[in-house]
Amino acid sequence: MWDSGGVLLHTFCVLAITVPIFTLDNGLMRTPPMGWLAWERYRCDIDCQNDPKNCISEALFRDMADRLSEDGWRELGYVYINIDDCWASMDRDANGRLQADPKRFPSGIPHLAQYIHDRGLKLGIYGDMGTHTCGGYPGTTLDDITTDAQTFADWEVDMLKFDGCYSNAKEQEKGYPAMSKALNATGRPIAYSCSWPAYQGGLPPKVNYTQLGEICNLWRNYGDIQDSWSSVLTIADWFFNNQDILQPAAGPGRWNDPDMLVVGDFGLSMEQSRSQMALWAIMAAPLFMSNDLRTISSGARTILQNRVAIGINQDPMGVQGRRLLVEKSGIEVFWRPLSDKASALVFFSRRTDMPYRYLTSLAKLHYTHGTYQIYDVFAERELGPLKDSTDFVVSVNPTGVVMWYISAPADADQNSAHMGEKLRGPALHRKSDGILL
Amino acid sequence: MWDSGGVLLHTFCVLAITVPIFTLDNGLMRTPPMGWLAWERYRCDIDCQNDPKNCISEALFRDMADRLSEDGWRELGYVYINIDDCWASMDRDANGRLQADPKRFPSGIPHLAQYIHDRGLKLGIYGDMGTHTCGGYPGTTLDDITTDAQTFADWEVDMLKFDGCYSNAKEQEKGYPAMSKALNATGRPIAYSCSWPAYQGGLPPKVNYTQLGEICNLWRNYGDIQDSWSSVLTIADWFFNNQDILQPAAGPGRWNDPDMLVVGDFGLSMEQSRSQMALWAIMAAPLFMSNDLRTISSGARTILQNRVAIGINQDPMGVQGRRLLVEKSGIEVFWRPLSDKASALVFFSRRTDMPYRYLTSLAKLHYTHGTYQIYDVFAERELGPLKDSTDFVVSVNPTGVVMWYISAPADADQNSAHMGEKLRGPALHRKSDGILL
Repeated sequence: MWDSGGVLLHTFCVLAITVPIFTLDNGLMRTPPMGWLAWERYRCDIDCQNDPKNCISEALFRDMADRLSEDGWRELGYVYINIDDCWASMDRDANGRLQADPKRFPSGIPHLAQYIHDRGLKLGIYGDMGTHTCGGYPGTTLDDITTDAQTFADWEVDMLKFDGCYSNAKEQEKGYPAMSKALNATGRPIAYSCSWPAYQGGLPPKVNYTQLGEICNLWRNYGDIQDSWSSVLTIADWFFNNQDILQPAAGPGRWNDPDMLVVGDFGLSMEQSRSQMALWAIMAAPLFMSNDLRTISSGARTILQNRVAIGINQDPMGVQGRRLLVEKSGIEVFWRPLSDKASALVFFSRRTDMPYRYLTSLAKLHYTHGTYQIYDVFAERELGPLKDSTDFVVSVNPTGVVMWYISAPADADQNSAHMGEKLRGPALHRKSDGILL
Repeated sequence: MWDSGGVLLHTFCVLAITVPIFTLDNGLMRTPPMGWLAWERYRCDIDCQNDPKNCISEALFRDMADRLSEDGWRELGYVYINIDDCWASMDRDANGRLQADPKRFPSGIPHLAQYIHDRGLKLGIYGDMGTHTCGGYPGTTLDDITTDAQTFADWEVDMLKFDGCYSNAKEQEKGYPAMSKALNATGRPIAYSCSWPAYQGGLPPKVNYTQLGEICNLWRNYGDIQDSWSSVLTIADWFFNNQDILQPAAGPGRWNDPDMLVVGDFGLSMEQSRSQMALWAIMAAPLFMSNDLRTISSGARTILQNRVAIGINQDPMGVQGRRLLVEKSGIEVFWRPLSDKASALVFFSRRTDMPYRYLTSLAKLHYTHGTYQIYDVFAERELGPLKDSTDFVVSVNPTGVVMWYISAPADADQNSAHMGEKLRGPALHRKSDGILL
């Protein structure tokens, strides 16, 4: 009887927790999704005759699937290969179903899904709540939602990005929840990325983040990223300026999406690339790269494959971080709490002159539990123990970051002390120099 | 008698040519100066206790002299090592002469000059027409000009950058020409960089470029560069928007100075670094790097040491180039005529999305002499012969350039055909693939 009662109680608790998120009960994306998304780098390039290596075609996605599976990306968590706009034929088929452009996807989406699944990866596809996609391809009107959701499920697609061009606010208010239900109704777990809030200006009262968390796994709050530092900075500023609204909206299964990583493209310096990686990790942002994995530089790859930065982004507690401080010097400090009483700090410089020597202490950054172990994420080295009351100087390069993984204080329980080692993996060794740069 | 008459005629011609530039008859900088200048990267960092490797001190300039002479820079033309602001003691000496800060320059400037000359390099120093330098150190008032010019000559300095903080327009109008005369009067060839026009807004009628060409070897027309792509772009735009005024002002011994190269610092991507190098070469700009040559990345070094880009910058004809076209697509085309009927073309993209395939022909870019040999400067390869009437596509990366060195047409005289080989040196071989990217 006691056992039976225990089971009943457990069942009750699960129900109590899951009821509010019933409409998207797909259990997906308990940590932010990672992978590759075509848009920023390849846009609507459909000129396969003159630009065969870069046009939106099955060959491009197969190439990227090969790279994700063969170059160490998959093992780090980069498992989604996501198609964006301009994949479809201009006409639906005789049964009113979407179909891929036959010249650029001659084998069809189901075959591509198989190719991707065979490599231990997942396939994302793109649709649009409206009469047309942003690129002018067939959209999904309210009447098409059930059909299109079933088509994606039949094709064994694993994720849908649902854009919002060519629809009005009323249609979106019906369409985004309807697609969520329709995806669930297929019985196939399909992660659901909603562009809805970006079309509503990103903020309450127009945006209802409680509802979004119930119907979408992630959502685009703001405009598209471009391959430039000013774009990265504009986006990061918007998200941190509105963190009091956005930060509580995120959690396991429901993420704010500041858009793709442009690391490895043309517009960011190495410092700026580390900054995007660090700030996206603090934000618990989806990590969708949009770049050419066939030709990416070793510098960019090293940043994108940084195990501790990824570990911070993927922390299982799933609490989005915050900006702690904006200094007149142009230094900003960001913080994210992590599992096992660990945390991450990012020191960022907006300056465009020279490295800035920033003087602070952990106590000034609200650390009050004694002595911490510090690991410099991009320098890839231990910095030794640091007392909360000790003043230190950290040198931050222009448009760059210093990112720290901070282990639980020495007086915390035993389990937590191992978290740093878990994130870093076995290849990294502690240095005893104790110098703080 | 005939011989004697010939000599007389020759002398007369030389006089006729030199009279208009009599006040700066130093014969220096027949091609744009190249070297290294402390300001952008090191600013007024005088904190040698906490930042000994980066503070403005004789150690910093010795370090950079070592790097210029040992890492292949000097042989490519980078010979100036230039001190900027914050080198001086706050007080003049008992004789009213400027003196270096004794703690940071314990051996003194003459000793540093010797160290630099011993390595086949030249030393530049910084002064300010006004009561104080921009950083608050002793300036050079009208009364100090003769003394300070003589001090620099006594120290065996090779170049003076003369800034304009803390003086008014009338004082500058007297001071800049007076310093030119005073430097000449010392008998030591000292190149003279005038910040004057930057304080006058850079344009006529306030700026008299004819006069500047007579009294200065180079001049800063515009604001200080910062370590950011937006700064590089703002500066390049200003110079090319005003090219009708600025382009004729430049020539051997008299150069517009859009400020330092920030390649190798923190803010530019590799594409953007190639763009600055290419546009500065088109502009016949002084090539003063401001970076840390001790730690520069191999990517940045490769760009700064590109022999053909340097060759274009250093073309002995000394004609500044121009922007030919601004396309709605965001592509811009730049051109510079070079010695021996050669020329340089730069295709530049302002886009921030993806590589753009730009369709054009040499004829559309005003080439009308038949077939040309094309060399891709940064790809470091021959692209084969190209007829002026042939349409071609050049793929330009976002914020990047494609730079071509274009040899004299096939029907030009024999001598000119060798120019390409001269610039490239013996290590480069022609490829026969003939593909135009």
